[in-house]
Amino acid sequence: MRLGLEAEDRDEIFVPHVFDEHRVDLGEVRMNYATVGDASAPKLLLIPAQSESWWGYEKAMPLLAERFNVFAVDLRGQGRSTWTPGRYTLDNMGNDLVRFIDLVIGEPTVVSGLSSGGMLSAWLSAYAKPGQIRAAVYEDPPLFGAERDPAFGHPTSQGAGPIFAMWHKWLGDQWSIGDWNGMRAAAAHELPPHLAGRPWPLDPPQNLREYDPEWGRAFSSGSALAGCDHARMLSMVKVPVLFTHHSRQIDPHTGRVQGAISDLQAGMVCEIVTSAGQPIDYRSFPQMGHFMHAQDPELFCRTIFDWHDSLQLDPLVPVG
Amino acid sequence: MRLGLEAEDRDEIFVPHVFDEHRVDLGEVRMNYATVGDASAPKLLLIPAQSESWWGYEKAMPLLAERFNVFAVDLRGQGRSTWTPGRYTLDNMGNDLVRFIDLVIGEPTVVSGLSSGGMLSAWLSAYAKPGQIRAAVYEDPPLFGAERDPAFGHPTSQGAGPIFAMWHKWLGDQWSIGDWNGMRAAAAHELPPHLAGRPWPLDPPQNLREYDPEWGRAFSSGSALAGCDHARMLSMVKVPVLFTHHSRQIDPHTGRVQGAISDLQAGMVCEIVTSAGQPIDYRSFPQMGHFMHAQDPELFCRTIFDWHDSLQLDPLVPVG
Repeated sequence: MRLGLEAEDRDEIFVPHVFDEHRVDLGEVRMNYATVGDASAPKLLLIPAQSESWWGYEKAMPLLAERFNVFAVDLRGQGRSTWTPGRYTLDNMGNDLVRFIDLVIGEPTVVSGLSSGGMLSAWLSAYAKPGQIRAAVYEDPPLFGAERDPAFGHPTSQGAGPIFAMWHKWLGDQWSIGDWNGMRAAAAHELPPHLAGRPWPLDPPQNLREYDPEWGRAFSSGSALAGCDHARMLSMVKVPVLFTHHSRQIDPHTGRVQGAISDLQAGMVCEIVTSAGQPIDYRSFPQMGHFMHAQDPELFCRTIFDWHDSLQLDPLVPVG
Repeated sequence: MRLGLEAEDRDEIFVPHVFDEHRVDLGEVRMNYATVGDASAPKLLLIPAQSESWWGYEKAMPLLAERFNVFAVDLRGQGRSTWTPGRYTLDNMGNDLVRFIDLVIGEPTVVSGLSSGGMLSAWLSAYAKPGQIRAAVYEDPPLFGAERDPAFGHPTSQGAGPIFAMWHKWLGDQWSIGDWNGMRAAAAHELPPHLAGRPWPLDPPQNLREYDPEWGRAFSSGSALAGCDHARMLSMVKVPVLFTHHSRQIDPHTGRVQGAISDLQAGMVCEIVTSAGQPIDYRSFPQMGHFMHAQDPELFCRTIFDWHDSLQLDPLVPVG
């Protein structure tokens, strides 16, 4: 099943949601998003994980809307946003969000992102246009752990990389293969032991149906991060950070890691951001799954509110 | 001689110019530029070649100012703009210019760029924010010819790539080696015959002193263009194009190319842009050197004025 690049070309795969969806033309991509909350409240941009669409935040959004004007997006290659073959890099995705903040949000923003979205939250905290970002939440981000040649700790091949490679191999760029059953059968022997135990459902889950598996190739091969060394990026962070660290285990025999980022790597993140002159609030949730914002939205929101209050940010002066 | 990343860190290398220089903070980089012309005239952004600073356009700028409000920039890694180790990609450079147009120019713009700057002119014509670009000039751009694995014609290794690799080898990232004499001595036997005849001056010329040789590595290795396939980019062009094609020769025995882009590749550029629905005005100047805008600024300006008149663009309605 060869799917087109715009949402209209693959309309049959989508399902309805509680919040209305909108689309904005950013130039190269049409970006899909949902928004909730009082337009006069502080802005919060939510950035989903790899293979997650905006509605991964659907349960958290009404709670966050008590304090924020919330925007949740589909990144390029996911959901109803444009798929961009050959162009899945963190830098391109980050600059999509720079344009989104300019064109849709229009004022300084707190950003929060999970996993790959957490890397983008870090990217924005370092590389956004001046004044766009007020503060950043890194939700269980695979900093260093998603790199092919990290400055610290294990590379992606010893973490979650093999899952992304497997998705790509059996599903193909833009689902051009789509052999879900072949993938289910192969998973037990293709994946390394620390990943092989994971059960795969009979049919592709909705979030994966909305995912361009070429992402998987870009991340497992390292091309997505080729121009974006994490140590350098973290040394440029310009705003306060909240880092939530979820479940992780290191196999003592092989050194392979279940989880997005090891304790060693998390320590280096905190050290580099601190050296960059920014406060980083590190909170460890060792019992919490990767998708905390869906698994325990109340705790997720409480954690953000608590940190946000502690920052004592000045109220924004309205422009114009 | 290890040089710093901001202009202040390497202030001793710069020389005065006719036009004042200004700097704008784009987030990751501080971008240096000069501007001339009536602020109410149509905007023109000039993008220099690899190893060229903004003042490569210095002779053309007063002529262009008869019709345009002109802005000439130093790209990241060149002149008084920030050097960005590990982050020299066409996508990052293109997005710097998106921010520059937003923050400095502030209205729809004609863009003109030479060589690598011509690739960026093409990038902007395809991937800029909606409405930023009115029309684009590609000055002798190495489209396909700068790629490591091009869809059409020769790869960079059979064109100018070995020069960039040599600069990097002997001068080093951020001039960390700086062995100019070693490079001069090695050039005759390290470069392939079609490039080896070029004489190198006794001392590094000013434009190269202002260049981060890490650019050379990024372009000769292909990493600068890894996320930016030229055929795909050209298929997304959204504005009218002027393509000036300068001197080029193909060695009939080896197939190696002296010049930025072969006739075959130029033909494919025109075909793809036309298929994208945009007019492309192809003008061949087979006797003209690569740096037409410095070598013959009158002809360069006349060519742009003539083409610009032919477009009959609607006057811009002032905003606000």
